[in-house]
Amino acid sequence: MRIVVDAMGSDEHPGPDVGGAVMAARKFGDTIILVGDEARVKAELSGQNTAGLSIEVVHADESIGMKDSPAAAARDKRHSSMHVGMQLVRDGAADAFVSAGNTGGILAVATLRQTGFGRIPGILRPAMGVVFPIESKPMLIDNGANADARPEYLLQFGLMGSIYMARMHGIDRPRVALISNGEEEGKGNELIKEAIPLMEASHLNYVGNIEPKEFVRGAAEVGVIDGFTGNVMMKTAEAVAGYMSDMIRKYIMAGTLTKIGGALARPAFQRVRDQLNPDEVGGAPLLGVNGVVIIAHGRSNAYAIQQAIGQARRVAETGIVQAIAGGVSQENHH
Amino acid sequence: MRIVVDAMGSDEHPGPDVGGAVMAARKFGDTIILVGDEARVKAELSGQNTAGLSIEVVHADESIGMKDSPAAAARDKRHSSMHVGMQLVRDGAADAFVSAGNTGGILAVATLRQTGFGRIPGILRPAMGVVFPIESKPMLIDNGANADARPEYLLQFGLMGSIYMARMHGIDRPRVALISNGEEEGKGNELIKEAIPLMEASHLNYVGNIEPKEFVRGAAEVGVIDGFTGNVMMKTAEAVAGYMSDMIRKYIMAGTLTKIGGALARPAFQRVRDQLNPDEVGGAPLLGVNGVVIIAHGRSNAYAIQQAIGQARRVAETGIVQAIAGGVSQENHH
Repeated sequence: MRIVVDAMGSDEHPGPDVGGAVMAARKFGDTIILVGDEARVKAELSGQNTAGLSIEVVHADESIGMKDSPAAAARDKRHSSMHVGMQLVRDGAADAFVSAGNTGGILAVATLRQTGFGRIPGILRPAMGVVFPIESKPMLIDNGANADARPEYLLQFGLMGSIYMARMHGIDRPRVALISNGEEEGKGNELIKEAIPLMEASHLNYVGNIEPKEFVRGAAEVGVIDGFTGNVMMKTAEAVAGYMSDMIRKYIMAGTLTKIGGALARPAFQRVRDQLNPDEVGGAPLLGVNGVVIIAHGRSNAYAIQQAIGQARRVAETGIVQAIAGGVSQENHH
Repeated sequence: MRIVVDAMGSDEHPGPDVGGAVMAARKFGDTIILVGDEARVKAELSGQNTAGLSIEVVHADESIGMKDSPAAAARDKRHSSMHVGMQLVRDGAADAFVSAGNTGGILAVATLRQTGFGRIPGILRPAMGVVFPIESKPMLIDNGANADARPEYLLQFGLMGSIYMARMHGIDRPRVALISNGEEEGKGNELIKEAIPLMEASHLNYVGNIEPKEFVRGAAEVGVIDGFTGNVMMKTAEAVAGYMSDMIRKYIMAGTLTKIGGALARPAFQRVRDQLNPDEVGGAPLLGVNGVVIIAHGRSNAYAIQQAIGQARRVAETGIVQAIAGGVSQENHH
């Protein structure tokens, strides 16, 4: 397996990106190809123990930063680490691409065949899936690849999410739900109302439209939603979890007994924190493009990059891109 | 002040509704008019100490339940407690209406002049505001009165939310933000992108489009959003808060030391729970209809009903309906 890592991706690049690549090369025995400013990447590598590991460096003149406009950067920065890295995969020199860089930039470069992969034939819009950080670890898709959606897109998001969860986690016929503002008939916006009959007529294991409460309780392995609402939902979950932690800490620190109690209960808090920790999960797969792309958090550390690489190799290994191509062709002839 | 309470509203009606009415009559010295099945309401009242309180009962033949289709019930159940109660306010016999019943039913009955209040002239769509249960208690509007929105609706949601927060909480020029999936230029769906210039050109104290994280950190007093996304956002916040509480409890109970720690830290948890408790807040105002309507939680207890009545009397007292009528006329001539 040969995995490309964008060395210029994370907020603190190239440290975490290179560190994670070294960890992954050791853990998985794969070849890791670091793409970015060669001098900086080699300087970073020189501080690491890479004896016996298969790590290559490919130079890229430019990089797409957090402040770049995605569309403009995809068009103008033709020698960015994202362009160079994805083209290595597209042209068969590697199996998967991992980046913790500007999400919009990754989407823009990946979506066009000219710059990256292009769409899988029959796929209307690629979508970003994210793991919702609860015990059952369901996928929420789309997390913002498309701010606006159409009912046919939602159907395909469900299809792609279903294939991902089936192959990655060995789930037989994953339960697919539309996330809505209520379960009763007549609930949902126009988009959801029009998507329901498409879901019902599909091959998917569609279990209905459910509220966030049911999703959080594990009622589906795949929660389908437009990218705007999905992104707001995911960010609300993260914000509320962070807010609650802060409040609990504040009130525990406000009294002597509660402070002692908090110290004794610390292992329990740590378990909750571990479960909610996005680093464990790896990154978000970009599904529907004609190549394996994993988008890691901008604030990834080396461990999170290693996990994202592990996820990318598994997506490649389990043939998810090919399965989506087959699935969409079957669904479109249905 | 004369406040109408829907005695057939809450999940456990008429107990909590009647109990809350009695508490409110005592606390505020107002006249409370209970509307519903006269025999059941009087039976419930007979178990309460109502000496010296001003409580009236008005009979209604029917009631709109949680399973009723809102539009059909608004059209067909002309003698429901919602119809009879709102018409008392509309016709000048009372100042405000409170119900813990079927939200869709309340919306449907309230929105038409024939059955309830009708819209304030110039208001395109009424909207439901909810208090987001964080320390700064900002308003999220719309929480689901309209599943689909247009940019002009969002502008009016901001206007109504701003007037509500200014009058109810004495905030000078409340900060109004659009809730979006990012703050950078180009972020947002089509709806948000088209709403931004309307907000910028308005009289509102518009502070930009913000992410849920910023909203949870108190960056605005009024968060404007379409009703579908707003409802999903609110329900996600409630679901995640509940999930985290359950996880913390579970892991605390899993060990002896953590169990002792949890017991010592209990007052801190209680403070967090109190802050997140929707009962304290009262209900959700339905803004934009030509009368005062407060929608309480279906699972309200008597205390929550009392709080909703307190909120309703303050909305009436501070002239929010009249202020919205003035504000929309000013904004439309702007």
